[in-house]
Amino acid sequence: MMRKFVADKARSVLRCSLLDRHCRSLSSATISAPDFRSSSMDSSPSKSSFPVTLENISQKVLKCEYAVRGEIVSLAQKLQEELKAKPGTHAFDEIIYCNIGNPQSLGQQPITFFREVLALCDHPVILDKSETQGLFSTDSIQRAWEILDQIPGRATGAYSHSQGIKGLRDTIAAGIEARDGFPADPNDIFLTDGASPAVHMMMQLLIRSENDGIFCPIPQYPLYSASIALHGGTLVPYYLDEATGWGLEISELKKQLEAAKSKGISVRALVVINPGNPTGQVLSEENQQRIVEFCKEEGLVLLADEVYQENVYVPEKEFHSFKKVARSMGYGEKDISLVSFQSVSKGYYGECGKRGGYMEVTGFAADVREQIYKVSSVNLCSNISGQILASLVMSPPKVGDESYESYCAEKEGILSSLSRRAKTLEEAFNKLEGVTCNKAEGAMYLFPRIRLPEKAIKAAEAANRAPDAFYCQRLLNATGIVFVPGSGFRQVPGTWHFRCTILPQEDKIPAIVNRLTEFHQKFMDEFRD
Amino acid sequence: MMRKFVADKARSVLRCSLLDRHCRSLSSATISAPDFRSSSMDSSPSKSSFPVTLENISQKVLKCEYAVRGEIVSLAQKLQEELKAKPGTHAFDEIIYCNIGNPQSLGQQPITFFREVLALCDHPVILDKSETQGLFSTDSIQRAWEILDQIPGRATGAYSHSQGIKGLRDTIAAGIEARDGFPADPNDIFLTDGASPAVHMMMQLLIRSENDGIFCPIPQYPLYSASIALHGGTLVPYYLDEATGWGLEISELKKQLEAAKSKGISVRALVVINPGNPTGQVLSEENQQRIVEFCKEEGLVLLADEVYQENVYVPEKEFHSFKKVARSMGYGEKDISLVSFQSVSKGYYGECGKRGGYMEVTGFAADVREQIYKVSSVNLCSNISGQILASLVMSPPKVGDESYESYCAEKEGILSSLSRRAKTLEEAFNKLEGVTCNKAEGAMYLFPRIRLPEKAIKAAEAANRAPDAFYCQRLLNATGIVFVPGSGFRQVPGTWHFRCTILPQEDKIPAIVNRLTEFHQKFMDEFRD
Repeated sequence: MMRKFVADKARSVLRCSLLDRHCRSLSSATISAPDFRSSSMDSSPSKSSFPVTLENISQKVLKCEYAVRGEIVSLAQKLQEELKAKPGTHAFDEIIYCNIGNPQSLGQQPITFFREVLALCDHPVILDKSETQGLFSTDSIQRAWEILDQIPGRATGAYSHSQGIKGLRDTIAAGIEARDGFPADPNDIFLTDGASPAVHMMMQLLIRSENDGIFCPIPQYPLYSASIALHGGTLVPYYLDEATGWGLEISELKKQLEAAKSKGISVRALVVINPGNPTGQVLSEENQQRIVEFCKEEGLVLLADEVYQENVYVPEKEFHSFKKVARSMGYGEKDISLVSFQSVSKGYYGECGKRGGYMEVTGFAADVREQIYKVSSVNLCSNISGQILASLVMSPPKVGDESYESYCAEKEGILSSLSRRAKTLEEAFNKLEGVTCNKAEGAMYLFPRIRLPEKAIKAAEAANRAPDAFYCQRLLNATGIVFVPGSGFRQVPGTWHFRCTILPQEDKIPAIVNRLTEFHQKFMDEFRD
Repeated sequence: MMRKFVADKARSVLRCSLLDRHCRSLSSATISAPDFRSSSMDSSPSKSSFPVTLENISQKVLKCEYAVRGEIVSLAQKLQEELKAKPGTHAFDEIIYCNIGNPQSLGQQPITFFREVLALCDHPVILDKSETQGLFSTDSIQRAWEILDQIPGRATGAYSHSQGIKGLRDTIAAGIEARDGFPADPNDIFLTDGASPAVHMMMQLLIRSENDGIFCPIPQYPLYSASIALHGGTLVPYYLDEATGWGLEISELKKQLEAAKSKGISVRALVVINPGNPTGQVLSEENQQRIVEFCKEEGLVLLADEVYQENVYVPEKEFHSFKKVARSMGYGEKDISLVSFQSVSKGYYGECGKRGGYMEVTGFAADVREQIYKVSSVNLCSNISGQILASLVMSPPKVGDESYESYCAEKEGILSSLSRRAKTLEEAFNKLEGVTCNKAEGAMYLFPRIRLPEKAIKAAEAANRAPDAFYCQRLLNATGIVFVPGSGFRQVPGTWHFRCTILPQEDKIPAIVNRLTEFHQKFMDEFRD
């Protein structure tokens, strides 16, 4: 009894502190348990016998939240198991995971050339065999040889340089140069297991205490709030303006910076996600220029999350890297501290499971870079397949290569389909009562706003949930569709949203729209004031 | 000028605090810079224009050290570049990296079966092709199919469950059961990008402040000191007894626990590395039982680094997992909190670059396990190739499989060669004047003690280096051989050691021994009192 009391108290303290520090909508968005009921914990004794308890672990860990794998996903996994064990027990026959940008889990196929090269690098002894000519494209064989020649001893199973294999960094730097039209230095590239560890590394470097603040857009991708919490810093919000298509206003940045300063918070860095996650907007070059100016004036490190750089769906917008924008303004290495994050998980490649990515670190003093190098050394290196893939993504087949045409067709097929899906879903959301949805100009998500009836908000309160979490849970239980409540991304207090990926395969979209529309109608009927 | 003064001052403050907190031998073992001279930093302006400086980054990062990729390795890389640019400029024609357990970088070949399966999972479309039969073994094709069937949608490019693919965890749990003779639960397995991130995760969970201590063996693998520093805790040392083959005495643990308590340190966990790194000893079962008792009595989490479980070279010793030992003593889930770390980087497989590994987490309350799950969720999942490899390592080919014989031959060839190399190097070290070296019963290292003449110690002081770092640098400059100074692993104050891997290929060992012996003789002649 005592134990339970203490644990409940700790949870309640936690909730209060969250309520206090952020906004009410957060309170029920904390990540929840995986289902351990089938595990050995079943037969576990009273918890008091364990030395580690919720009360004596790091409070940074306790405070950290990660909604895209939270409660709603645990419920989805439970339903999926029930469907498997007893088909027909629910009103749907499959779970549609729209909670996370995980394209291949929903049927997107990998780019053939990339996978050919990875397979050949994994098992190079077949490179010389005649059968290999029949199985693999000529240019994939050639590329594999080139990559192997860049790896000391051709050892794809060896730890590499802590920043990643030098030859692959050369390739990536060349790819950045080709993209931006400005020089890139392979010594600025740090290859990582996806973009997430790179973000953690920068937070680890910059955050000294809770008095250090990191500017994040609201809504934001929860990696940022989680990483800031884990490193003991303070998230300083700046709100994107939903009414202007999730516009990023410098006046808002200035206002929030002053507010943070008045609380004794020293703001170290500004996170910009472009194209936006969960909001899907693509920044204009002019807006980017003003952001660069702002960071320069205020001495902020610009942390540019550019993992969706290949995901732009509207002809009137184009991706510009912040480095290109800064260099175009005449700002060099010394003028702005800029970190750009890129990943193999997004774009048209969608290779989430390969955990490849990099950060390009510019505008840091040499002695500080040594510290970044040191931290990256502690984990030795990122995985070599992910490193190879990052180089392929930044240097895909070129005109004249055997794979070029099929590569272009695969890429174009994926991107144009994503564009169509984004449009179809956006239109469907905008037809729902009380729902408005901005256009997904880029990235992989829609983030519609839902105006919930007062009765629904009260019912959510009674169920101890944020109203949008309440909606998403009802949706899941009724349809098998998994959205993430907006409260997991933070939002203007009193507004409610959800994030939906545009990733289900096209042939499934009509059914999703039907199920969603039907559910929504019933929900509104039930709760209409 | 001002900048340099401030930076020097910061370094000097850091050094003093290190000297104060640990022992003198540490002072010059901090990791040093990669060589950025060829980078764009060359033309960088005065550092004062950058917002991020050594003075305003996280002091946890600044204090963190990681010697196995430190100063000595940077020097080695510089020499290697010089050799490449101007062959003949040094007294040697290649750098022999004995600094890190990175077998394939020194020519060890991967296990064929493992690589076949990885390649097929990377590019599954070839599984059905007739040419594939001629290129791959039957059982690798079958295993690839089995693995693909365990992955939802056969999508090897999708994020998996945060703990790793369930089917692969089933395989690993079965492998642990077969090894130990006690049940293992797939829900206890957390797959990670090598063992290092798993260690970080546990440190992140357990460390609340510098008043939280983690017991570590001295000498230790610097991942532990680095991770404790990065998470802001205190390393509580317990010294292994070199005179008894790096024995682990419970009386020493008790003494150090009391000493820590008297300083207000709350010790949360005990790290044991078995087989030992850098020390190479294999613990006896009886010793392990006493460690389990100690952890149970004192309420410590037992963090068992068991990544060298396949690396045992002496017939009189055998690896026993701590879980097996605890269960054999009749202790169940509720009696002891135990985390076992395993990696694909070591053993006979040596697949460092694949970044695969797992931790088996037992004896934690369900609500604390939820927190571990949450933290592992923030990075989404570990890389799928590494996950697959971890399952292969714990479930290699069996009698009757087509690959079984060649697999056994490859494995046996690697392990018996490592055993011979360990013996040859140990004997060579013991022949050197002033050097004594314990047997490498396991792991991949020798950690000889060197009694340096007073004159050498004075010369090291004059050069502002730890004496063992001074020795290792001279050795590298004279021979191209890279050892890591003992000060990077910590050691009894006033004693000096270095760590040498047993990984150079056998045909190179005689030359290494000759060069080392010749250098050592000259060094002693130069400095003999």
